[in-house]
Amino acid sequence: MNDEEEEQQIRDVISTWMSATEAGDLSQVLDLMTQDVVFLLPGQPPMRGREAFAAAFRSALERVRMKGTADIQEIRIAGDQAYCWNHLTLNITPLRGGPPKRRAGHVLSVFRKESDGRWRLCRDANLLTEV
Amino acid sequence: MNDEEEEQQIRDVISTWMSATEAGDLSQVLDLMTQDVVFLLPGQPPMRGREAFAAAFRSALERVRMKGTADIQEIRIAGDQAYCWNHLTLNITPLRGGPPKRRAGHVLSVFRKESDGRWRLCRDANLLTEV
Repeated sequence: MNDEEEEQQIRDVISTWMSATEAGDLSQVLDLMTQDVVFLLPGQPPMRGREAFAAAFRSALERVRMKGTADIQEIRIAGDQAYCWNHLTLNITPLRGGPPKRRAGHVLSVFRKESDGRWRLCRDANLLTEV
Repeated sequence: MNDEEEEQQIRDVISTWMSATEAGDLSQVLDLMTQDVVFLLPGQPPMRGREAFAAAFRSALERVRMKGTADIQEIRIAGDQAYCWNHLTLNITPLRGGPPKRRAGHVLSVFRKESDGRWRLCRDANLLTEV
């Protein structure tokens, strides 16, 4: 696979992430991240592993619906590792009333190509703030 | 150079960054980043390039002294590209009175090995918050 095809695979992971999040399809989102994934957020301890993500996602699904748009700024691949810099906009609609919220900002992510040949998110620094 | 030596080079870049920041040695800090470096911060536009960093650094030096401690959580290298996940604590002392501030949090960084064989910071997502 050439670099362009590898990059397209990573773009596909991101667009699938967005559509699966909007659909509330947790199992599909989980399949897009490595088992040892780490999410970094301001002022919070690192969220480590698929199970921690799953718990947070399930909890969010009880309260809100999320619809995101990813504007990819850059992807650069080296071997089995790639970084991606993304500008994300996330619209959050509460299920039980209240005003919708919008969060936006940059995300710096690392993707790893695993032994099954698929790229998955492995490290993620999320700089979104409320707008 | 084996992976362990490459990783040590990246650790050296980070420790030099810390000591040069404490010393206010801008030219030394600038030499540790690529020309096209991008710094991502919550709620701010990306800071692009050495010159933008230099302007921010000079402006900070007029007002404060900074002393940081880096607690490296992970470094993973693939070819000429590496990511590093770091927990940073930054003590900021105003020059003209006022209480010192402390900022702490995670940083996800990407390093690139350039044609001169040296690793430099190229992308950086800074999640520090005031503590």
